[in-house]
Amino acid sequence: MSVTPAQLFDKHHGTLEAAVQAIHTRGYWTPYPEMPSPKIYGETAQDDGRKAVEACFGREFELGQPGQTGWMATERSPYGVELGVRYPVCDAEALIAAAQAAMPAWQRIGAQGRAGVCMEILERLNKRSFEIAHAVMLTTGQGWMMAFQAGGPHAQDRGLEALAYAWDAMKAVPAETVWEKPQGKNPPLKMQKHFEIVGRGVALVIGCGTFPTWNTYPGLFAALATGNPVIVKPHGNAILPAAITVRIAREVLAEAGLDPNLVTLAAFDKRDATQKLATHPAVKSIDFTGGNTFGQWLIDNARQAQVYAELAGVNNVVIESTDNYKAMLRNLAFTLCLYSGQMCTTTQAILVPAGGIDTDQGHKSYDEVCADLAAAIDKFLADPAVATAVLGAIQSPDTLTRIAEAVEYGRVVRPSTKIEHAEFPRAEVRSPLLLACDAADEKSYMEERFGPISFVVRVADGAAAIALSERIVREHGALTVGVYSTKPDVIDAMTEATWRAGVALSINLTGGVFVNQSAGFSDYHGVGMNPAANASYSDSAFVANRFRVVQRRYHID
Amino acid sequence: MSVTPAQLFDKHHGTLEAAVQAIHTRGYWTPYPEMPSPKIYGETAQDDGRKAVEACFGREFELGQPGQTGWMATERSPYGVELGVRYPVCDAEALIAAAQAAMPAWQRIGAQGRAGVCMEILERLNKRSFEIAHAVMLTTGQGWMMAFQAGGPHAQDRGLEALAYAWDAMKAVPAETVWEKPQGKNPPLKMQKHFEIVGRGVALVIGCGTFPTWNTYPGLFAALATGNPVIVKPHGNAILPAAITVRIAREVLAEAGLDPNLVTLAAFDKRDATQKLATHPAVKSIDFTGGNTFGQWLIDNARQAQVYAELAGVNNVVIESTDNYKAMLRNLAFTLCLYSGQMCTTTQAILVPAGGIDTDQGHKSYDEVCADLAAAIDKFLADPAVATAVLGAIQSPDTLTRIAEAVEYGRVVRPSTKIEHAEFPRAEVRSPLLLACDAADEKSYMEERFGPISFVVRVADGAAAIALSERIVREHGALTVGVYSTKPDVIDAMTEATWRAGVALSINLTGGVFVNQSAGFSDYHGVGMNPAANASYSDSAFVANRFRVVQRRYHID
Repeated sequence: MSVTPAQLFDKHHGTLEAAVQAIHTRGYWTPYPEMPSPKIYGETAQDDGRKAVEACFGREFELGQPGQTGWMATERSPYGVELGVRYPVCDAEALIAAAQAAMPAWQRIGAQGRAGVCMEILERLNKRSFEIAHAVMLTTGQGWMMAFQAGGPHAQDRGLEALAYAWDAMKAVPAETVWEKPQGKNPPLKMQKHFEIVGRGVALVIGCGTFPTWNTYPGLFAALATGNPVIVKPHGNAILPAAITVRIAREVLAEAGLDPNLVTLAAFDKRDATQKLATHPAVKSIDFTGGNTFGQWLIDNARQAQVYAELAGVNNVVIESTDNYKAMLRNLAFTLCLYSGQMCTTTQAILVPAGGIDTDQGHKSYDEVCADLAAAIDKFLADPAVATAVLGAIQSPDTLTRIAEAVEYGRVVRPSTKIEHAEFPRAEVRSPLLLACDAADEKSYMEERFGPISFVVRVADGAAAIALSERIVREHGALTVGVYSTKPDVIDAMTEATWRAGVALSINLTGGVFVNQSAGFSDYHGVGMNPAANASYSDSAFVANRFRVVQRRYHID
Repeated sequence: MSVTPAQLFDKHHGTLEAAVQAIHTRGYWTPYPEMPSPKIYGETAQDDGRKAVEACFGREFELGQPGQTGWMATERSPYGVELGVRYPVCDAEALIAAAQAAMPAWQRIGAQGRAGVCMEILERLNKRSFEIAHAVMLTTGQGWMMAFQAGGPHAQDRGLEALAYAWDAMKAVPAETVWEKPQGKNPPLKMQKHFEIVGRGVALVIGCGTFPTWNTYPGLFAALATGNPVIVKPHGNAILPAAITVRIAREVLAEAGLDPNLVTLAAFDKRDATQKLATHPAVKSIDFTGGNTFGQWLIDNARQAQVYAELAGVNNVVIESTDNYKAMLRNLAFTLCLYSGQMCTTTQAILVPAGGIDTDQGHKSYDEVCADLAAAIDKFLADPAVATAVLGAIQSPDTLTRIAEAVEYGRVVRPSTKIEHAEFPRAEVRSPLLLACDAADEKSYMEERFGPISFVVRVADGAAAIALSERIVREHGALTVGVYSTKPDVIDAMTEATWRAGVALSINLTGGVFVNQSAGFSDYHGVGMNPAANASYSDSAFVANRFRVVQRRYHID
């Protein structure tokens, strides 16, 4: 089967333009259904996806990449499942050379051709959502439903969103023009001009261990669509979802008559290999999701590249008052439980006035708020099947250590408990740890403690809570903040604080939307103004610097 | 007289949308007439402009800025005119504090209000084109017509172009939306979301000594329109055009009920003051035009800011063959004479095959091309009135030194000569120096020798010339390259070289357009891919990173 990039553009043009419409209006929209329904994805899709992943276990995951020097298997499933998938280790110089060799033809097919190919890759990824979901679940410890939604359709949404921004930016550049300047009574000066969109160079996309597709697809599709070959470097414990993605991309590229080495997987068995790759002169952009140490190293050392970094932060929620106390607690409890707080958007610090808060259930003291939130978590996790489905498993042994050590940092309001998983007896499942501390205990709550660790921080009053929230965001970063208040002036003050600090605000969430959730095409994920991220998924800034326009001009009659 | 930003937007909306249309089609367009015609600008405009500038001589140029500590007068006219204008020296911390204080209200009026105010500033600048032209001429040494066109309407074009990109990027962000997600048989989830455009912080625009408005307006208007206060730091020898610009901007801001400290002039009498300002944590963007040493220092040290830098380069032209030898020589001669080669776009290296070139006048040897180009320059400069009008004066004593020293770097084909200026007897006017050298003499021609210094470089053949051109651009940068050839395959090879190196190409220019000219709304000035510039005037990348979107969301019924 063979198809041209132009045919792929025609096939997907309608969806792409709908995506452009979506990013300009930012209401609800998606072409990728988030329900794992057999009616949509096929009656056997669930089973097929699981079997496809299991078929990889203990085998070599062949990609046909250049410069292969061996195989490596580094993944350890948080669910205790033996994976043993062996990935090709390739020489970084060979991957770069192959990427550079593939680049001119990728440029020449133009923005339309590239957009068509990217759309086809996304469609194939969508059809393989169950397979990717199983790979995400088993490598990250996410619960099944989250693995399907966040790892599948929602990640595809974020990829398409970035592609839509890239397409929108590129189509604003005319391919050619006639420039005709009047010269009074003389004939006009007349020139033909051509404007060629040229990628900046090899793109490196470095994934994280918790969301190996959701945090990878924006950079992958933004860079690829704008004319750049992409090397995907997954987290060593979440390679399989990236490897499946790369294989699909390579298949689509080859079918369209293009060089599959436009998208390659970098699995390294040497620790400094990623650093060498990241500082290679040919690498012109790096998308990174992960910790501050390596992220800052990249920003400081990979000076030849534009670095788009999502790093650590201290997400926080201000509770000043509420007219729906129970729903507020239920909403917060779910936020803290979802994937055991292992989301970059999970709330870590909940700021509550020392004098307590006014609610529809009467005044609640600071201690009552602490206890009631703990009780709401207990209630939510009462059914073990619900608990394990929502909590998932703990992705990293480091997180288990952090949970154990965190009890030193405050008064334990609710201890973290180990929960048995009915299906996966070796899974490391933990419930949220809730601690109480004073605003003055900054060492406790004012650095990211990734995992199910949260603090109810006692602050002087609502105004102090807002001021503290702003300072946390400015100094330590955050992807999300929330506020609960019945008073418009408090909400206004919090809103203005988020404008100054640069962070997304959720106000009085008491229903089916949670502060740690971010919807593609509507919510900007990250602002790019505070230390937690220097870029956003997605906006025009996320794509505009990934390509350049090279012009030529000559006289015509 | 008082007017609201909204009224200003209404007043200028049509022109702004026409500018947006222009950047999407990039044909010829301008709202600012380039002819200094009394019918357009007023019968007394020429005289009024000159008098307005002369009225500044020997006086204090009052701006009413905060933190003033004294006055300074540093300008020395290349025409030998005594200027003696004294500018306010203000404390950098005071300018930053005032800028930050002005920022929230500037954010709150929104993209429309800001665009309206910027449009009004540009209109006022246009009306004052003669005044600005005189200030540009006397401080930079430009000839009168160039000072009017490049310093007035063409600079305004570049300002409006940047504003149009900024407006286009900001209006793509909806102010608000209703997000409504279906929930099967249950009622949909429904949220109201608001998206606030927030500037990154204080912008610093550092001007150069040769084009104090043309190279300043893009950064000024891109930053201001996107919500940032701007501190304009002009070159110490070309303050007056910037000071007039800042005064006009402050007048418009005050009339619109806004804080004039959104635009301030930084005139410093201490050498390290600019470095301190550039590395201030509050400064989030820097637009810089100038030399490599300070430009690279900014990139390396002002890490808290996004730096848009236009630096040195080695512009070059490949001559492989031509079907219009005389017109080619005439075109190149004008390029080398215009403003004595003191344009960042002037050709420095002319690459000619050792075996000569085929032309419509028969085969011409390398030595004949050298001699004929020298003769074309002589012919063009034969009339002293034309010569002084086109050459202008030498802006910097450093350039005079470079001309004197450059004779060591090759065989002198045409010496630089001192030319008397009928109107300004103390003006330092110099004709172009033309040198011949071999491609191997890289030390001679492969670094920028700013001023009227060019090399005819002897290369093996056409293919070698193209390869050398590409290497020069990659390693030393260039804003412009040209090619002369009658062979499509040579032009194709040169075109592909410019895609790889990232530089704008002019092909077979033999008429009234010159390789060193760049038309606003049509030609991208700089590509942002080679060492001569990391950004372009203008494209979406020039504006997209100057603002961020901060969202808030809440449930609605």
